[in-house]
Amino acid sequence: MTKLRVHNLAVSLDGFATGEGQSFETPFGHAGQRLMGWFFPTSTFATAVGQGAESGGGSRGVDDAFAAASWQGIGAEIMGRRKFGPQQGPWQDESWRGWWGEEPPFHTPVVVLTHHARPDIQVGETTFLFRSLPPAEALALAVAEADGLDVRLGGGPTVVREFLEADLVDHLHVVVVPIVLGRGVRLWEGLEGLEERFSVEVTASPSGVVHYVFTRLPRSR
Amino acid sequence: MTKLRVHNLAVSLDGFATGEGQSFETPFGHAGQRLMGWFFPTSTFATAVGQGAESGGGSRGVDDAFAAASWQGIGAEIMGRRKFGPQQGPWQDESWRGWWGEEPPFHTPVVVLTHHARPDIQVGETTFLFRSLPPAEALALAVAEADGLDVRLGGGPTVVREFLEADLVDHLHVVVVPIVLGRGVRLWEGLEGLEERFSVEVTASPSGVVHYVFTRLPRSR
Repeated sequence: MTKLRVHNLAVSLDGFATGEGQSFETPFGHAGQRLMGWFFPTSTFATAVGQGAESGGGSRGVDDAFAAASWQGIGAEIMGRRKFGPQQGPWQDESWRGWWGEEPPFHTPVVVLTHHARPDIQVGETTFLFRSLPPAEALALAVAEADGLDVRLGGGPTVVREFLEADLVDHLHVVVVPIVLGRGVRLWEGLEGLEERFSVEVTASPSGVVHYVFTRLPRSR
Repeated sequence: MTKLRVHNLAVSLDGFATGEGQSFETPFGHAGQRLMGWFFPTSTFATAVGQGAESGGGSRGVDDAFAAASWQGIGAEIMGRRKFGPQQGPWQDESWRGWWGEEPPFHTPVVVLTHHARPDIQVGETTFLFRSLPPAEALALAVAEADGLDVRLGGGPTVVREFLEADLVDHLHVVVVPIVLGRGVRLWEGLEGLEERFSVEVTASPSGVVHYVFTRLPRSR
């Protein structure tokens, strides 16, 4: 049974998943890199940027365990358009092929949610499918593409919130970073009572972040 | 050196320290008792309500350790008026002597912050001093009353926020409860960058709550 999974979604203590003033140069706005400070020291990150085993780089603690889990058993991804690129409105040209160069890390089909149609593109082993779909239909498409594996919901926070509101998320991993951002995009808005649909497991990391794992309770029939 | 300490301040994942719609019957509003659900099973609570050692009641785990710490080395308390009673505006009569009956648990002077003057009262071993004072002056009064011990800032959340904004808090213990309240009184509002003034230690409890201990960094001279 295919699950829809969210991983490594970092929020501040006051619940902001990104800061204010996002731009091409500052994708997290005034939050800068502070929401991902727990991730950069991990072996998973070191490996992703080519400084892994060969250089002995990266921690192997609980933060790394969670970071690595994001990549296990995933057959397709769904992401919002802002994760694919910083442009807004109709595509001015179609030369933008994502942030990730010629071999994106996904190696699966990726459904990019956008109101602005564009032909699908193949970049390395990753296929990007640009679609304007409501959450349930986007999920159905991704499931069909995932070849029996799970689907990762890659963000950003507004997209995650929409799928949570539609009660489509089976696994939600949130990383609470002990900073107060004060402004930005709130993750929890509109999700009052979320905990009634999930079991919750909590792990504090020596790095100071707290990992929350929400697992969807069995749905009654 | 007297410290100003906050203990057992519970907030939801989305940062609400109390719910919406507070009243005499529902002091936490729509949050009900959910923010304090971690506290009721503790030995500290069982003892406070007379079901302690003699009945073998209450847990002795990390939640209890934090609950008990609240009472160690305290010589005075500062609280907002709403913690003292549910009335608003001028006192209609002065027969209200707090929620706690004839022997309140404080056994120290308690500074009650209110814009509405009222004579001090003695209830059991506790003296309530009703004062209209800005945070720094309220603290000075409480320090003078504390006889060399620490001062506890007892809440509510708006009062705590005011003292944090004035940078008067030395120790802040926040308990994050894994629920999404959606509405109510926000603790973190206006406190952007709070973490720069504090070191933070984080402990996850098997009960599902997370204890955050903020310790004020040494002030530069």
